[in-house]
Amino acid sequence: MPRVVTLTTDFGSGSGYVAELKGRLLRARTAFTLVDISHDVSPHDVFAAAWLVGQGCPAFPSGTLHIVVVDPGVGTDRGLVWARLGTPESHQDFLCPDNGVLTLALAKLPLIAARRLTVPADAAATFHGRDALAPAAVRLLDGLPPESLGEPLHHLARLPWPSPEETPTGIQGEVIHVDAFGNLVTNLPASLVPQLRAAGRLRVGPHEITTIVRTYGEATPGTAVALVGSQGFIEAAIVEGRADERFDARVGTPVAIDT
Amino acid sequence: MPRVVTLTTDFGSGSGYVAELKGRLLRARTAFTLVDISHDVSPHDVFAAAWLVGQGCPAFPSGTLHIVVVDPGVGTDRGLVWARLGTPESHQDFLCPDNGVLTLALAKLPLIAARRLTVPADAAATFHGRDALAPAAVRLLDGLPPESLGEPLHHLARLPWPSPEETPTGIQGEVIHVDAFGNLVTNLPASLVPQLRAAGRLRVGPHEITTIVRTYGEATPGTAVALVGSQGFIEAAIVEGRADERFDARVGTPVAIDT
Amino acid sequence: MPRVVTLTTDFGSGSGYVAELKGRLLRARTAFTLVDISHDVSPHDVFAAAWLVGQGCPAFPSGTLHIVVVDPGVGTDRGLVWARLGTPESHQDFLCPDNGVLTLALAKLPLIAARRLTVPADAAATFHGRDALAPAAVRLLDGLPPESLGEPLHHLARLPWPSPEETPTGIQGEVIHVDAFGNLVTNLPASLVPQLRAAGRLRVGPHEITTIVRTYGEATPGTAVALVGSQGFIEAAIVEGRADERFDARVGTPVAIDT
Repeated sequence: MPRVVTLTTDFGSGSGYVAELKGRLLRARTAFTLVDISHDVSPHDVFAAAWLVGQGCPAFPSGTLHIVVVDPGVGTDRGLVWARLGTPESHQDFLCPDNGVLTLALAKLPLIAARRLTVPADAAATFHGRDALAPAAVRLLDGLPPESLGEPLHHLARLPWPSPEETPTGIQGEVIHVDAFGNLVTNLPASLVPQLRAAGRLRVGPHEITTIVRTYGEATPGTAVALVGSQGFIEAAIVEGRADERFDARVGTPVAIDT
Repeated sequence: MPRVVTLTTDFGSGSGYVAELKGRLLRARTAFTLVDISHDVSPHDVFAAAWLVGQGCPAFPSGTLHIVVVDPGVGTDRGLVWARLGTPESHQDFLCPDNGVLTLALAKLPLIAARRLTVPADAAATFHGRDALAPAAVRLLDGLPPESLGEPLHHLARLPWPSPEETPTGIQGEVIHVDAFGNLVTNLPASLVPQLRAAGRLRVGPHEITTIVRTYGEATPGTAVALVGSQGFIEAAIVEGRADERFDARVGTPVAIDT
Repeated sequence: MPRVVTLTTDFGSGSGYVAELKGRLLRARTAFTLVDISHDVSPHDVFAAAWLVGQGCPAFPSGTLHIVVVDPGVGTDRGLVWARLGTPESHQDFLCPDNGVLTLALAKLPLIAARRLTVPADAAATFHGRDALAPAAVRLLDGLPPESLGEPLHHLARLPWPSPEETPTGIQGEVIHVDAFGNLVTNLPASLVPQLRAAGRLRVGPHEITTIVRTYGEATPGTAVALVGSQGFIEAAIVEGRADERFDARVGTPVAIDT
């Protein structure tokens, strides 16, 4: 039985939808720890949710149940799933729509098993989080096995995920996440740092960053720096400032290392 | 004794006032689950709080204690109350100012009992949440009966709540809530769907919505749709967009069905 | 062992950094209550964090562990500390960078003991919250003594904190915090109320407030009032309005009482 349950939604922090979801979950007979990962995923943004789930969920203790509801297709024939990722000894469990929201998590943790949920006949067509996922979570919290939730599934939907590409002049990638500090996380892995140091610069759109550091505090406030972020990707940042504003950059902005 | 305690305030997420309130509650000797419903109710907006409390609180397990502090009259002679709503077998308990914040909850769940709280003499005149409601909650968490909190009360304050009206040309209502997606929740109940389908349109201010669906995914992104939302009210939405912006609508904007 | 753990960061509510931090903490073998104080401290604003920690943390039950990560110097040679403040019978414990973030807490609660943490060799240079503070918290939650975290420290960094000053015409202070309602909390203590009443006015920049009340509800909406706030400081407010907007005021705006 899960001891920790997390929630990731686009319902809006402080919305009544979140309250309803939590109220239903807390009707389980077993005590558990409820953790909000976010309710402020950009509405309907499955890619942003996939990033957040892939970044945050693997850190939790084995057996944690992650409920993810970013679901523009609610009420259509997209499926709802239970999935277990990782290894039998150390795994993360998920309840979510089968719309690609686990794409990044699946790149980090292999799929162990999945089930397609049976949606209750009286579920509101617009709120499967409350009426299908929460009841499934309560069944698991009350000790029922995942097998009781529905038929086995062998494949989960995945979003196309941008990979860095070799070009005639170097390696081309893109910004895949902008954090709360305005730091630009790219899809260039830390393994490219030797190439970055050899080139002496990271290109961000039409701009160049020529200061390569190990941590923000190594350069003076206001300096544009490139470094390896805590997720293991190359990142562009302004020390104590906002790189998204300085470089007018967002998810999808091209970045490059010359080779 | 309550096993779950929820908080709904206008203190602002992340404010020190919320921290102080939680710190005081956690001094109770009994363990409990603390749930934030919202700390971002629009400042002093008792109507918005009443909506949120009415939407979210009934979903919680019986015996949950809901603390609600949206209290522009703090320190004046408006009362503070403990109230139990529902049935003896399945009830929600509240600690809040007696300013109408339970209006929608009372429309869903009958009043079982209420008490007017005695305010401690040393309570700060501007922070009864911390100095009167939290200590009352701790008494309940520590196993004292509600009767120990103060004298019985037989009536609670209620806000005027807008009801749909029949007009010479149809049924007139209004927007009573805008959710995080920009969906416009009206006060027209789901029971009016036959009239809506017969009319073929929902009027929102000067605009008309002619696509009536069961769920958002039935129409293409960008389409204006009318549907029954998860609260049982007719709702205006833009598929994967924002109806509040498209229709320049807010709480109070008139809506109508022609008959 | 701590029973309650609080978090105060500038990571941004709903960010994956917060999720990672919580996931690591929940790997502790002991159950505990996890409380978010704020994840929306203005980025890198150690002064704002010091205010929040000083306001919120003393309210918690003795033995609470407060993790504070507002850390522009992450990865440089600024230290990370464990500190115990208060009295042996009633104390608050902290894990945080040694950058002044405990300044206001130290003004309220004396330092009992502190340790300088040993940072794990494999910690990411940009995320000591996850890789150094969370593991230290888990050690404490798992029952290890604070002495196991590192060498004793006898002094903690403190920020310069603005004190009111006597001038030829009166007492000069400043705004030290603006709350979610737009109320202006000053550094003038409640003990100056006799002087305030004698002067008949509080100066806020070039403006004057001449209505002195005990609580907001004593004046009509829209009135500018001066009162003692729940933190024990003199505060400027607009009843059911925003004083920061009316007076174009912010942290650092001068305030004065004529004497």
